[in-house]
Amino acid sequence: VPMPTRPRPRVVIAGAGFGGINATKALVDGPFEITLIDRDNYHGFWPLLYQVATAGLGPDDIAHPVRGMFNDVTNVHVRLGTVSGVDFERKLVAVEGEADIGYDYLIIAVGSATSDFGIPGVDQHAFALKTLPDAVRLRNHVLMTFERADACPELVDEGILTIVLAGGGSTGVEMAGALSELISRNLASDFPHLDITRARVVVVEMADHLIGAFSPSSQANALETLKRMGVEVRLNSAIAQVAAGCVELKDGSTIPCGTVVWTAGIRANPLADQLGLEQGRGGAVKVGEDLSLPGHPEVFVLGDLALASDRHGDPYPQLAQVAIQGGRHAARCIRRRMAGKATKPFRYHNHGIMATIGRRSAVAELPGGIKLRGTAGWISWLAVHLVFLVGFHNRMIVLAKWGWNYLTWDRASRVILDEGSKTPTGQARA
Amino acid sequence: VPMPTRPRPRVVIAGAGFGGINATKALVDGPFEITLIDRDNYHGFWPLLYQVATAGLGPDDIAHPVRGMFNDVTNVHVRLGTVSGVDFERKLVAVEGEADIGYDYLIIAVGSATSDFGIPGVDQHAFALKTLPDAVRLRNHVLMTFERADACPELVDEGILTIVLAGGGSTGVEMAGALSELISRNLASDFPHLDITRARVVVVEMADHLIGAFSPSSQANALETLKRMGVEVRLNSAIAQVAAGCVELKDGSTIPCGTVVWTAGIRANPLADQLGLEQGRGGAVKVGEDLSLPGHPEVFVLGDLALASDRHGDPYPQLAQVAIQGGRHAARCIRRRMAGKATKPFRYHNHGIMATIGRRSAVAELPGGIKLRGTAGWISWLAVHLVFLVGFHNRMIVLAKWGWNYLTWDRASRVILDEGSKTPTGQARA
Repeated sequence: VPMPTRPRPRVVIAGAGFGGINATKALVDGPFEITLIDRDNYHGFWPLLYQVATAGLGPDDIAHPVRGMFNDVTNVHVRLGTVSGVDFERKLVAVEGEADIGYDYLIIAVGSATSDFGIPGVDQHAFALKTLPDAVRLRNHVLMTFERADACPELVDEGILTIVLAGGGSTGVEMAGALSELISRNLASDFPHLDITRARVVVVEMADHLIGAFSPSSQANALETLKRMGVEVRLNSAIAQVAAGCVELKDGSTIPCGTVVWTAGIRANPLADQLGLEQGRGGAVKVGEDLSLPGHPEVFVLGDLALASDRHGDPYPQLAQVAIQGGRHAARCIRRRMAGKATKPFRYHNHGIMATIGRRSAVAELPGGIKLRGTAGWISWLAVHLVFLVGFHNRMIVLAKWGWNYLTWDRASRVILDEGSKTPTGQARA
Repeated sequence: VPMPTRPRPRVVIAGAGFGGINATKALVDGPFEITLIDRDNYHGFWPLLYQVATAGLGPDDIAHPVRGMFNDVTNVHVRLGTVSGVDFERKLVAVEGEADIGYDYLIIAVGSATSDFGIPGVDQHAFALKTLPDAVRLRNHVLMTFERADACPELVDEGILTIVLAGGGSTGVEMAGALSELISRNLASDFPHLDITRARVVVVEMADHLIGAFSPSSQANALETLKRMGVEVRLNSAIAQVAAGCVELKDGSTIPCGTVVWTAGIRANPLADQLGLEQGRGGAVKVGEDLSLPGHPEVFVLGDLALASDRHGDPYPQLAQVAIQGGRHAARCIRRRMAGKATKPFRYHNHGIMATIGRRSAVAELPGGIKLRGTAGWISWLAVHLVFLVGFHNRMIVLAKWGWNYLTWDRASRVILDEGSKTPTGQARA
């Protein structure tokens, strides 16, 4: 007589970013029925998003179809949808326009969104860089400013070729370096009739240093490298307002510009505000030591959405590695709960941080106080990002494109992928 | 005493498609100042557009930045813009929103657009496949129909997984084969809970045969191959109307469907209607034997926009090769005019026609009556399309992707590149 089979616990995972994907992978060989929900049908490799925005890679190169990652298993159910709320008492996840989804365990890892800190004009006039459409829109826009300047050189005097990067963190620094190379190498050749020396890349940073997460010597290296590349860096400068065609600083000065990229801040995904939970800095959800919700041991919140802290009470940074390790930790906790064991606290193991500035130039700080600069930092950056890129296909293609870019200085994706007319047949376009 | 330099003749070339690019290349080493105008900043390799629509390639892979093609010359001025008219008397080209451009010689090669033949509903409900945004939109939509069916299986009974290809020409046949492989190989694995046998690909063709440009034996081979792949082919079937969720045929029957792709017809670019010139079949501009306009020996019209005929008066087909050879011919004519010589008539040299149907299956008809089928046809198709793809970078990347696709059956670009919110920062997206 066969034993009556107990139904397999239902695990719902909201978000197919670094946290959600790694939680799913860590649970997939267990006795679970997993539902993985994301608003997109792909897992985006966001550390390379700035390369899409600067025409080094195409949008598909850093996106991996989520369903393709779990083709060979039967207990993962991928759902396209936006999670709009959770009923923690009835254990139901609400998905926009769809029926609620019940769970026995829930992992919420929907990440972060751009925050404008309430600064006027950011929402209307600045470009975000958080999603794949963001990157394509920004690429289109920057290329279009050069086209417009080429057709109407007076616009150069109005600053149309000035790109302001609001925020000197890793994204701002990586964008500044990549934009500088795009302009000096590629756009200079593409627009021989434009005075390319009039194109400016300006980083505006509130603090007195760039890349705050790094040590002072790495910060100084990044600053020096960017300046050598011709990037203007304005430290101790706060933005008061973004308007059409210019950025106003708190000291009263203005920077006329054609493009503003908002890399200054992120906050928790707006879902955090819908959950009715205690929130901390940047709207992040406060979680217990094991990443579970206080009073709800079956619910885990992790990655950028969570305010998790180390043993000293210092919050963990919003990094891919924190989300990856958090996803794996939540999976381990669920298995321990299933086995009737107590969960363990989440401890983030710092594998290092790195930021690339340009060709053969990056800063990397590895555990044990190892600091790499220049070519050594750059090679370690390349290796790490290739290894972590999801899927052998994407790794192969990105490696091929990087090899090409390196050898030829080319950035082949200088394509303005205009969305065109909205009617399916698009006959209006001439 | 130096000779007074005569100003170099200004050649304006409208359209950076196969015709315009080849005309530019053929004139670039001569004493000309060339202005090349296109609505897009890239040259699209349209023979591979259907592979973008079916997730085999990314949009950037088949697009080459026009400016990048003429980086090393100083006499080509690339302009982004839409030509809206020509004043043939004053020799001025009108560009939307810009100052007119004067010319000594003019080449008009702006190609064709989708034609709905006046059939109701095509514009609102069918997808065109003429531009890169068209292909991305169609890819998004097809993938989304499977997502919707997965979330709500009743939609399958309403036919959401049926794709109707209106028109059985080369594009329709190539799309049918590629969609069939996408569904049976990739989407079947991506959607294990969907009954993938309910997904249908239907080709509706008015004539009693597919790919009208080929010989009857190739037509029969294409029909047989598609049927073996599970594609439904409805010959002798005319479409009366396209509505939301279904196609109505003239015989009164209807096909419920989630997607209609309109590959049935093209007509000349709408610019043709603005020129005040004599037009023929499909709105194409009637040209003289040397491709110049009657009464305007300094103006040449070529490619899909032109109604050019062979020595028997039969019009040349609307093919990439006709445009390529036409562009080179117009360039030769301009050089002969400059030298005070008479121009020669344009004679299209047929290098063969080919259409791929699927994996290791294509039909090719080469000069001398050589007909290739199956693997031989497919290898010749691959070789020709790689050779003609613009730029070594694109060739290398496409070759790598095809190699991957062939070995793994994967189509890695199954990415729904949603355009997202229209505000730059896109904060509304959760």
